[in-house]
Amino acid sequence: MLPAFSSGHRETARVLAQKVREFVDEIIIPNEPQLSRPGAQALQLQSDLALEARQAGLYGLFYPLSHGGKIASLEDYLLVAEQEGRTEFSQAIFASHTALDAHMLSRFGNAIIRQQFLQPMANGEALPCYGMTEPGQSGSIPGLITTTAHLSNGRWHVNGRKWFISNADRATFMTVLARTAGKETALDHALSMIIVPADTPGFRVERQLMMMGHACGQGEVSLADVQVPEHYLIGVCGGGLELMNKRLGLGRLLRAMNWIGLARRCMDLMGGRVHSTRGKLGLLVEKQLVRQHFFNTYQAIAGARELVRIAARGVDAQCPDEIAINVAKMAASRALCIASDSAMQLYGAEGLSDLTPLYGIHRIARTSRILDGNDESLISSVGRRLISHYEHHTVYPFD
Amino acid sequence: MLPAFSSGHRETARVLAQKVREFVDEIIIPNEPQLSRPGAQALQLQSDLALEARQAGLYGLFYPLSHGGKIASLEDYLLVAEQEGRTEFSQAIFASHTALDAHMLSRFGNAIIRQQFLQPMANGEALPCYGMTEPGQSGSIPGLITTTAHLSNGRWHVNGRKWFISNADRATFMTVLARTAGKETALDHALSMIIVPADTPGFRVERQLMMMGHACGQGEVSLADVQVPEHYLIGVCGGGLELMNKRLGLGRLLRAMNWIGLARRCMDLMGGRVHSTRGKLGLLVEKQLVRQHFFNTYQAIAGARELVRIAARGVDAQCPDEIAINVAKMAASRALCIASDSAMQLYGAEGLSDLTPLYGIHRIARTSRILDGNDESLISSVGRRLISHYEHHTVYPFD
Amino acid sequence: MLPAFSSGHRETARVLAQKVREFVDEIIIPNEPQLSRPGAQALQLQSDLALEARQAGLYGLFYPLSHGGKIASLEDYLLVAEQEGRTEFSQAIFASHTALDAHMLSRFGNAIIRQQFLQPMANGEALPCYGMTEPGQSGSIPGLITTTAHLSNGRWHVNGRKWFISNADRATFMTVLARTAGKETALDHALSMIIVPADTPGFRVERQLMMMGHACGQGEVSLADVQVPEHYLIGVCGGGLELMNKRLGLGRLLRAMNWIGLARRCMDLMGGRVHSTRGKLGLLVEKQLVRQHFFNTYQAIAGARELVRIAARGVDAQCPDEIAINVAKMAASRALCIASDSAMQLYGAEGLSDLTPLYGIHRIARTSRILDGNDESLISSVGRRLISHYEHHTVYPFD
Amino acid sequence: MLPAFSSGHRETARVLAQKVREFVDEIIIPNEPQLSRPGAQALQLQSDLALEARQAGLYGLFYPLSHGGKIASLEDYLLVAEQEGRTEFSQAIFASHTALDAHMLSRFGNAIIRQQFLQPMANGEALPCYGMTEPGQSGSIPGLITTTAHLSNGRWHVNGRKWFISNADRATFMTVLARTAGKETALDHALSMIIVPADTPGFRVERQLMMMGHACGQGEVSLADVQVPEHYLIGVCGGGLELMNKRLGLGRLLRAMNWIGLARRCMDLMGGRVHSTRGKLGLLVEKQLVRQHFFNTYQAIAGARELVRIAARGVDAQCPDEIAINVAKMAASRALCIASDSAMQLYGAEGLSDLTPLYGIHRIARTSRILDGNDESLISSVGRRLISHYEHHTVYPFD
Repeated sequence: MLPAFSSGHRETARVLAQKVREFVDEIIIPNEPQLSRPGAQALQLQSDLALEARQAGLYGLFYPLSHGGKIASLEDYLLVAEQEGRTEFSQAIFASHTALDAHMLSRFGNAIIRQQFLQPMANGEALPCYGMTEPGQSGSIPGLITTTAHLSNGRWHVNGRKWFISNADRATFMTVLARTAGKETALDHALSMIIVPADTPGFRVERQLMMMGHACGQGEVSLADVQVPEHYLIGVCGGGLELMNKRLGLGRLLRAMNWIGLARRCMDLMGGRVHSTRGKLGLLVEKQLVRQHFFNTYQAIAGARELVRIAARGVDAQCPDEIAINVAKMAASRALCIASDSAMQLYGAEGLSDLTPLYGIHRIARTSRILDGNDESLISSVGRRLISHYEHHTVYPFD
Repeated sequence: MLPAFSSGHRETARVLAQKVREFVDEIIIPNEPQLSRPGAQALQLQSDLALEARQAGLYGLFYPLSHGGKIASLEDYLLVAEQEGRTEFSQAIFASHTALDAHMLSRFGNAIIRQQFLQPMANGEALPCYGMTEPGQSGSIPGLITTTAHLSNGRWHVNGRKWFISNADRATFMTVLARTAGKETALDHALSMIIVPADTPGFRVERQLMMMGHACGQGEVSLADVQVPEHYLIGVCGGGLELMNKRLGLGRLLRAMNWIGLARRCMDLMGGRVHSTRGKLGLLVEKQLVRQHFFNTYQAIAGARELVRIAARGVDAQCPDEIAINVAKMAASRALCIASDSAMQLYGAEGLSDLTPLYGIHRIARTSRILDGNDESLISSVGRRLISHYEHHTVYPFD
Repeated sequence: MLPAFSSGHRETARVLAQKVREFVDEIIIPNEPQLSRPGAQALQLQSDLALEARQAGLYGLFYPLSHGGKIASLEDYLLVAEQEGRTEFSQAIFASHTALDAHMLSRFGNAIIRQQFLQPMANGEALPCYGMTEPGQSGSIPGLITTTAHLSNGRWHVNGRKWFISNADRATFMTVLARTAGKETALDHALSMIIVPADTPGFRVERQLMMMGHACGQGEVSLADVQVPEHYLIGVCGGGLELMNKRLGLGRLLRAMNWIGLARRCMDLMGGRVHSTRGKLGLLVEKQLVRQHFFNTYQAIAGARELVRIAARGVDAQCPDEIAINVAKMAASRALCIASDSAMQLYGAEGLSDLTPLYGIHRIARTSRILDGNDESLISSVGRRLISHYEHHTVYPFD
Repeated sequence: MLPAFSSGHRETARVLAQKVREFVDEIIIPNEPQLSRPGAQALQLQSDLALEARQAGLYGLFYPLSHGGKIASLEDYLLVAEQEGRTEFSQAIFASHTALDAHMLSRFGNAIIRQQFLQPMANGEALPCYGMTEPGQSGSIPGLITTTAHLSNGRWHVNGRKWFISNADRATFMTVLARTAGKETALDHALSMIIVPADTPGFRVERQLMMMGHACGQGEVSLADVQVPEHYLIGVCGGGLELMNKRLGLGRLLRAMNWIGLARRCMDLMGGRVHSTRGKLGLLVEKQLVRQHFFNTYQAIAGARELVRIAARGVDAQCPDEIAINVAKMAASRALCIASDSAMQLYGAEGLSDLTPLYGIHRIARTSRILDGNDESLISSVGRRLISHYEHHTVYPFD
């Protein structure tokens, strides 16, 4: 789905990955206890570290090359993204989470959008958020979207309510998925994506939602006759469903790459535990059930990495494979769940406490099975596609 | 391990279970959102509800009959305990968690201990806590305990540090497991249990530990030359290891019963979700993957209940079976993990948020695999015992 | 579904269980290598041992009391059935598999049927089989049955084809599920059960089906205008679907009891392996992964036994619970799968070879997930029932 | 471990893979029912088909290039091997199983060995077998090997007993792993590999072992003062342990590649089932539990393929990674287990019968978890290696 990439500059990626790793190990990880405390102080520290990353040339590495990015191929970016992902706080600090919006705006936004929204993002002056899910609806079904946008006198009037919006409290603008046609119009012509700046009258953050007992910036937003210019439409009118699917595919892979990094961090923490004083007291080196945790963790990570790599290659080649993408997302999520679970067992009561980063990682692991496509939907969707392949073929080609 | 129980009064238990269920449904569950907020207000509400439970005759139901309890058999208590367990806040409100201490003091404490500590507990005026695990040690190995108690002029001098102590911040006294003999003494004669009132000079709550990101009263306590009278010893000097094991067995079953209640709550929440407006929008009734969640949850709960029942029967008959107890604990923990996991998947993003009680339940589920004997230790210990049975027998008798 | 049972004679069951266990250990198990070889010699040996069991008073123990049975309650029979089930050859030798037909005929057959078919079964002179599934159809859907029976001049004319019929080659009569009314009739009035003696003209065993590479008496039978007297109808005309469901419930529990016995045998074999010379060479006692196999096996067996016991109690009380029965069947099947799998891993290459009984047991374990209701159907059916409970209730009562 | 490969000729491999696939689909699969019947006729058919494969230029494709092979890189060979592996009978027909011996002899055999044993293999005139495991010992422990070889007058005298030898009944020579030094010598200098032609006096096939109820050429062989020339030693005297480990690594990957092919065959069979008349009767397309089987199967296969590919790349680059190899073996075995299990569930009773190839595939799947390193040993060994990495590092490098 991405613009044609130049041939991969694997070596550039390796060098950047190494730099990111050092930044994470030396700058971010020592600050994790501070970053994980609720409150304004942590948010300020996060901003400071983001600035520091920018100064080190490590901010927005997967942004479009035209807007500050340094890595053009998703396959190459895996090497960097898993290093960024080693800490749960890296998304905001390295802007890895907004690369998705940047690519959407770069590819589908008009010149004004690119100038007013994309360029400030690249400068670190704007922060996007994305409004799709709605309260009272079943999250994964676009056909149920009730937020509307209608055009009148050259302005979109947007009305509705969105929730589970990441960064709702800090975003400077939101991409809203809204219905722009009536029930009589087929769904693939009925939805559109429109940009709404957060300071537009009628845009209101209603409340913060806790996720697993933690305020992590997920919010609910109401839109009461919010008016924006006609050209704040992304892509064509009625093309929202297609944009949504393109966004989903790339988004899942970006997140999967971060999860693999976090899973690797867990395995490294396990390695540290076994050889620690307490690990030695418990004779962990000799225990087969401990070895089994390492085996399971390694196998899950190694397999997920390759599945993500292959899916990324398809995206780079402009022929994204939805089966491969969804399976990669599930595999990365599973690797993170296994790794964080194993690490927690090895750390025992300490792993549950605030003496390790494991609890925060566990939270991300658990949410990974629901957000961005829950396990059940993806299993059903992938299964359905595989079955439908066999309607006309006798063999499934794995390459 | 318990004093000989009179023949089970199953019907009494059924009636009490029904009352507890109504109390939970009508009084506690509507207050859960308030109870789950951190802070003093929630603690006060908890105390108020405990008083209300006492007034309704539902406090300390499994205390010794001599001290206010109404149910003598552990097998009968299952019916009540699983109703209490439906809410994560019931332990403190119904005093189900302190029944363990009450039985230990009733059976092994001398007359003074029973009068000074047990009776006030039964009156709701005293709250016990238990200090076993120590920082810097490997939690599950009693041989590594470094807290010491030595007798001098008729007083125990206790020195050491304990952590992961439930209710550390509110307890009025602590049962301390301490070393009362040197390394040359065999472990089963080297440890003792001693009562230390929380207001004794030298007793200090050093800090609260967060559990899964939540302050739930787990604390770290230092004991600096704390002095208590000689007769604050529970049982005999050097008998601490045996007491610890007895406590463990009963404690695991009591907790397992609560977990089953919590797992049943999750299944009931799943039932509600499927038939809710949102469940209907998502056509959940028709989905086989949803049915599979119900199947898995039911099977895990139904099996765990029976395993707990059988293990309880063994305790009632004064021949506790460690294999049966540990397997029951693991099965109940697993049922809770499956149930809370399934419910979370069915509720989707809402299940992660603070709009349902699922997040708090998930926290308890996750900790159940570590606290009170982690999965790995129990698997290894049960397996070792089973294998050693076959050293002299060719058949394992399941009855 | 069974006739009202007298109060359980648990002690009788215990004594019989002990006798069965000795018979299995001393008479059958030493003959297993011979019994497992394909061919007529093994069938003859099986008949000889069945006669021996009859002489020892251990044949048809769960037949109706009126026809030689000695145990009236299904819950009591569990103790015996799991001893019978320790060997895969016990079904034919103890007639545990035909107790199902015996109860169907006893309860729903008329006097002539009971005299002509049931009494000879009790005498060991007749062997029943059951024809339900049909080639070319989807096994689990009664609505697709195409075998027909129509009444003409006081005789049923039966036409059709049945397969996966246990004992097809040796049975003296078959209970045929056939369509006795047209498509316009509702299914619960369209099917009937009719007895067809194997020597009736038009009854033909077309071929033996291999199961997991093993000829175990599963056959395909064609019925070409087979004519039998009108009174060979079991129950009422059109009542076949209801009879089928009653048969299914009891059948699943009887089989589940045998599987538990087989699973226990596997665990005992594991115990023997660990302490054998080879087990000692491999230091199996010390290995946590070996202990884990024991833990998993024990937990699965102990849980399944109780689930079967509870489901049996419901049947005894004349209120069979389909959820409980199906969950018990799945749990017993799962216990057998885990136990035979664990044992095979502990025996290594030997466990795959013909030097142990494990391979035959594995075959039964694998088929248990398909025959008599495959996993997927049961999961979906149990889930659907649980969900439908919540349509009108907020809580699921586990007792 | 292999000689330096020329740069991969991926395209050659693709073309050969396509040819192999056609050969399998058109020539072998239609013959599977005949090939699976026990007896001499099936062996003759197998030989005929092997000849046909040779004439089609598809025999021994992974033999050393010097001896008829056409593919030099293991990574490239994956494409061919998974096509060969689609049928359980392909090993003998395509000589994929003897490529392992061919590489061992090519690399470590002297000129005479290459001429007398390797060249005839390439001509299809000789068939190797490998004798490692011994009865009465614990299979996976080389230190327990009791077969001895001592040199006297320029001849090796070999004495001992070996079992679980594939192709024991048809092999023309055996590579024997024997002890050539006493207990005082360290194990890595105490074992050697020696070639023993099957027609040497004292070499005797004692019996055939059944595997999962099936005679598949696994035998037990006794060696009674078998004498062979001194130069029948492979590699250096005392170097047997090192050779054994090299053989193991390559052998595991070759087998893993075949398993992936077999797993893909199962998925394709599932695809056929869903759209068959019976699949349509059962509405399989719509069932989420059926889709879940497809999802699980696809995910397992896709992940295993990449893990095998990576491990193969390491071998090609002469730096085989034991962790990667063993994890790849386990992943391929698991993929095959999941795929054959899922397919069996979808085919129901038919899948258990001899009407599909699934039963034979299931047998191979089950044995894959034991032969060539059982799951437990590999889990423990991989876990131990990973843990030991962390003794000196804080991070595990996945590339």
